Amino acid sequence: MKIARYLAHGQISYGMVDGDSVKELSASPYGDYTVTDHTHPIDHVKLLPPSEPTKILAIGLNYSSHLHDREAPAEPMVFYKTPTSLIGPGETIIRPKGTAKLDAEGELVIIIKDRCRNVSKADAMKHVLGYTCGNDVSARDWQKDDRNWWRAKSADTFSPAGPYMETELDPHNVRLICRINGKDVQNESTTYLIFDIPTIIEFTSKYVTLEPGDMIYTGTPGEPGEMKDGDVCEVEIEGIGKLSNPVKLES
Amino acid sequence: MKIARYLAHGQISYGMVDGDSVKELSASPYGDYTVTDHTHPIDHVKLLPPSEPTKILAIGLNYSSHLHDREAPAEPMVFYKTPTSLIGPGETIIRPKGTAKLDAEGELVIIIKDRCRNVSKADAMKHVLGYTCGNDVSARDWQKDDRNWWRAKSADTFSPAGPYMETELDPHNVRLICRINGKDVQNESTTYLIFDIPTIIEFTSKYVTLEPGDMIYTGTPGEPGEMKDGDVCEVEIEGIGKLSNPVKLES
Repeated sequence: MKIARYLAHGQISYGMVDGDSVKELSASPYGDYTVTDHTHPIDHVKLLPPSEPTKILAIGLNYSSHLHDREAPAEPMVFYKTPTSLIGPGETIIRPKGTAKLDAEGELVIIIKDRCRNVSKADAMKHVLGYTCGNDVSARDWQKDDRNWWRAKSADTFSPAGPYMETELDPHNVRLICRINGKDVQNESTTYLIFDIPTIIEFTSKYVTLEPGDMIYTGTPGEPGEMKDGDVCEVEIEGIGKLSNPVKLES
Repeated sequence: MKIARYLAHGQISYGMVDGDSVKELSASPYGDYTVTDHTHPIDHVKLLPPSEPTKILAIGLNYSSHLHDREAPAEPMVFYKTPTSLIGPGETIIRPKGTAKLDAEGELVIIIKDRCRNVSKADAMKHVLGYTCGNDVSARDWQKDDRNWWRAKSADTFSPAGPYMETELDPHNVRLICRINGKDVQNESTTYLIFDIPTIIEFTSKYVTLEPGDMIYTGTPGEPGEMKDGDVCEVEIEGIGKLSNPVKLES
């Protein structure tokens, strides 16, 4: 099932995507809900990021094709992206004037279902509500120079996510494509994740409590492409949809 | 004015601290409010962290006395602590079994008043609601080995803050003391901050939007002390109060 989070007539709701329509849910998808008859044409609503995370985790170096001469890490390499950096489908990625190189990283994003800690691999999938497409926007010079990636990965607009959350995906067997101005830059199957989803959830939840709506960006494959003023960046994941965002230089 | 955030009779409120009592505010201190006559003895309420941040920023290497052989950074050295790691006065700091050395870092914490971005030094203080005491709990081995300090600084319980927010402090001229089991470990004036509060707000808000309740831990002086099972750690800042937390080894 595809769940959208959207704004319509000044109100934020969750809804089930059904073709070109969205049917409002009676309540948030983190608890009990029903699908109501209250329907909007999908192009009459403003799609929002599919969850409201209290925190966003992200995994670096999680595809062999992205490693180049770097060694694969022994454990998932975790960092944070802040909720302030989150934007939805169609919103503009702002390329800060102060960075020399801004890259797009197409990624599969996990959305956590419930509050959990010390989750075992065997139980991990029970704590996933769904998956979405994410762009782990990365300012390479800051990423290289700063001890922590607070601005390299979390400046405002650096975490596009959407367009929907898909609750019935095989997350380890879908194609992930990132395009800049319509041209494929990254194209790989999620089969090649070094640390799979249960491993990521087991490892991170050993240290930090995960909460409903928290997102985990799972890492990017291949060679990310640079985004310049006026570009359009699209992340498409098979079974989820396409997340598209225009890029503008900071004014 | 000292503002407490507290739980009483199952309800969370803000209140003005008045001697041994707390007088409930009519609304959150981020907007308009009045001080009501609804009074509790302060030892009848459970004090909570004084704000509900959507993100917590922290500054490293911000006192000369903490640098030792390290160079002072040219710009504030920023990292994140996640809201999940926040605990209030009296709550227990859990020392994870997986870390070899867990240190207490007493710090002055800024609490942001309103949504702001690209704030100039001249305007910075208008965006501060108040200050509190913080302990930037640090797992040293993880801090050394991990590319980002996601667990070194943000494992659950690693961000004690409180007991109150003081809105009328001269933040650059107060004494900051950290004690372990009653013994002074750190003792320095905030006069010696390398990057002062306007500089920190100007620099961080260039990249990330700050929001009401967001916290900024401003850095620790001197030589932090280690916290072991059964210890009690206290951070006291002149004009604010004492933040005290017991320490327990993870079971």
